[in-house]
Amino acid sequence: MIKVNTNNNLVEIDYKKYQKDVDRVHKIIHEKKGPGNDYLGWLEWPINYDKEEVKRILEAASYVRENFDILVVCGIGGSYLGARAAIEAIRGLYSDDKLEIVYLGQTLSPTYTNQVLNYLRGKKYAINVISKSGTTTETSIAFRLVKEMLEHEIGKEAAAKAIFATTDKEKGALKTLASSNGYETFVLPSDIGGRYSVLTAVGLFPLACAGINIKEMLAGAKKAKKQLSEKKIEKNPAYLYAVNRDYLYRHGKSVELFVLYEPQFTQIGEWLKQLFGESEGKEHKGLFPASVTNSTDLHSLGQFIQEGTPLLFETIIYVEEPTEDVLIPHDVDNLDELNYLATKPLSFVNEKAYLGTLDAHVKEGNVPNLVISIERMDAYHLGYLFYFFMKVCAMSAYLLDVNPFNQPGVEVYKQNMFKLLGKPRV
Amino acid sequence: MIKVNTNNNLVEIDYKKYQKDVDRVHKIIHEKKGPGNDYLGWLEWPINYDKEEVKRILEAASYVRENFDILVVCGIGGSYLGARAAIEAIRGLYSDDKLEIVYLGQTLSPTYTNQVLNYLRGKKYAINVISKSGTTTETSIAFRLVKEMLEHEIGKEAAAKAIFATTDKEKGALKTLASSNGYETFVLPSDIGGRYSVLTAVGLFPLACAGINIKEMLAGAKKAKKQLSEKKIEKNPAYLYAVNRDYLYRHGKSVELFVLYEPQFTQIGEWLKQLFGESEGKEHKGLFPASVTNSTDLHSLGQFIQEGTPLLFETIIYVEEPTEDVLIPHDVDNLDELNYLATKPLSFVNEKAYLGTLDAHVKEGNVPNLVISIERMDAYHLGYLFYFFMKVCAMSAYLLDVNPFNQPGVEVYKQNMFKLLGKPRV
Repeated sequence: MIKVNTNNNLVEIDYKKYQKDVDRVHKIIHEKKGPGNDYLGWLEWPINYDKEEVKRILEAASYVRENFDILVVCGIGGSYLGARAAIEAIRGLYSDDKLEIVYLGQTLSPTYTNQVLNYLRGKKYAINVISKSGTTTETSIAFRLVKEMLEHEIGKEAAAKAIFATTDKEKGALKTLASSNGYETFVLPSDIGGRYSVLTAVGLFPLACAGINIKEMLAGAKKAKKQLSEKKIEKNPAYLYAVNRDYLYRHGKSVELFVLYEPQFTQIGEWLKQLFGESEGKEHKGLFPASVTNSTDLHSLGQFIQEGTPLLFETIIYVEEPTEDVLIPHDVDNLDELNYLATKPLSFVNEKAYLGTLDAHVKEGNVPNLVISIERMDAYHLGYLFYFFMKVCAMSAYLLDVNPFNQPGVEVYKQNMFKLLGKPRV
Repeated sequence: MIKVNTNNNLVEIDYKKYQKDVDRVHKIIHEKKGPGNDYLGWLEWPINYDKEEVKRILEAASYVRENFDILVVCGIGGSYLGARAAIEAIRGLYSDDKLEIVYLGQTLSPTYTNQVLNYLRGKKYAINVISKSGTTTETSIAFRLVKEMLEHEIGKEAAAKAIFATTDKEKGALKTLASSNGYETFVLPSDIGGRYSVLTAVGLFPLACAGINIKEMLAGAKKAKKQLSEKKIEKNPAYLYAVNRDYLYRHGKSVELFVLYEPQFTQIGEWLKQLFGESEGKEHKGLFPASVTNSTDLHSLGQFIQEGTPLLFETIIYVEEPTEDVLIPHDVDNLDELNYLATKPLSFVNEKAYLGTLDAHVKEGNVPNLVISIERMDAYHLGYLFYFFMKVCAMSAYLLDVNPFNQPGVEVYKQNMFKLLGKPRV
């Protein structure tokens, strides 16, 4: 299903020695006894998820696909990155699907926000606003703007049928607004943090609207839950990978570079940066998470990786079968000297770029490489991959002895900003 | 014009002590006596550029804007990042300009490439292929594919009028192909490397097609060339910034995080990563260049920056006046509690997010911050900014005692890949 290849990690790891720590953390996770254990709802989610809600999500998504041309996804952080990563990874960047997805509320940029509003004006758009509290600054400002525009364009009653709110089950500003205006609502479970929420309504509703099979995605996650509940390092790819990255961190590496090989996977790198950065980056600890999309970035960061300061290791997420492919044509003149590749699929060249780079970075660059490979990028496999990384992250953060589920440092800038904005104290 | 604020660098730098090294490097650069001095063409470029060619570029761009709906920019690395960074930064991500820009040849992704070809099919598109040699694998495969499709769709003769080649002045596969087929050609100067080429035809032709005033951009670069030729650290913002980043690198920081505050500037971060990563990342030296786009990424990497491993400093590129703006509306119900911001422009909130974050990261996070600010993101100021960073980069790399203009490490993966692909030896 998922393979973790550690043959190029350039270190000797004594897994027997590690097993005791892994056992301890495994127990902490599964018996919910570690710090942040209130946020372990994602662990059993592939089994425990609300089947009735998924049915409602599918119905609402059908309604959106039939009646609108655009879905505006209005969220930030965990209420943005997972859905975007999945939609782009599965549909691609030039999808011919009939429903366009537009992101708003993930930025305070006046230019971006104004341009998106102008782009939407006069078109048939629905809105999915995602916020636990409904008072997240970025999202609530953008939602106020786009909601007002929609109500102005089609009237308050019709707008209410085009707005879908994903929020807390019972309380908060968005819940109150949704109830008072009659929006359909979906639940952001109180025991699942933002960066672990992609398999809840937070991700599932936009994905279903985008035409992605969310039941398959949950089935993939369920498979992962089962396969990755094994304690033994060598039998559990999630723990094998977690132990490798932990070892490399403790032995001089300070940057983990996630490597993707297609542009539509770039946002998976962004999702990973939040997942690991927020989970591990505390108490002056943690690997700095970065990402590249090759071969594009071999012509950018490739030089540094090959010969620069030796502070990083790479984690490649390699997808074996491409979603689409194209054959390289023959050319009579052959001035570009490419005829040796004629009639070959482009996927053949991309694979050799991956293999050639792996070899270059490991053997000549002395850069440890971990390879995580999956068969293809469909809903099922991506559901598996999401769950895989969440399990890895919980294990990794507890191995570092930090809480995988809080993010105390994010509040500091917010408090400063509110002060500068003159926000009234409640 | 450009301001470099070092008040939050959290160190005491003795500029007098540094001045000697800066004097030495300044001399090396301006007298062209350092390693890689064959590639200093960018230094006098804002004065020395070929005025006749710029005239031709403007004429060809007018022709493209009148006759086509899409320009396909086909290039990778320095033949891709600068043009894309400038087009997105100035036009924004939801531009209403009549000419759409599509990128191809920057990847070997079979899915992306096939989707773009399907997207273009049947539409009115011109192509700008950019490659010094014409045998860069990514670009030449993509160009072969899109050229064949266009010739099939509109005939070889009409296709030749829709193809513009930016390549070596005299030699190489693309030059030969262009001459034989009668494409209009522009020059990739032999004394300017890819990552320093954005102000040449490499960047100027796509920018002019995108409706951007390239004469203003060159004028901005000319102003920068003049203002940044001063030797004294305190009087030259480029050297002031170069010395600060050098000092921080030598005193325990290993990652430079470029910080942008609007999504349409994200690609400027990508351009900077190539510029600094390829110029400095050699001989096991160099700052690892990374980038974030706030406030989006405050909900992702913000936690790590605030409280994680203390290995980084931030370089903020702050644009004072937004290109567009939007007012936050009043809402009678005020359930989202945002009425304290009603009638304020969104730019006001974005600015406070920047200031609040700066304070949070510096004072509570103990993260050194350098702030580079420009007045607005138009062609003139961006021309200035590009030149500024190239001058910084030359100074920085020479201070590190590495050649700022080569990239020997990029060849390793290519050779491995060619072997695996079975490329015939020439």
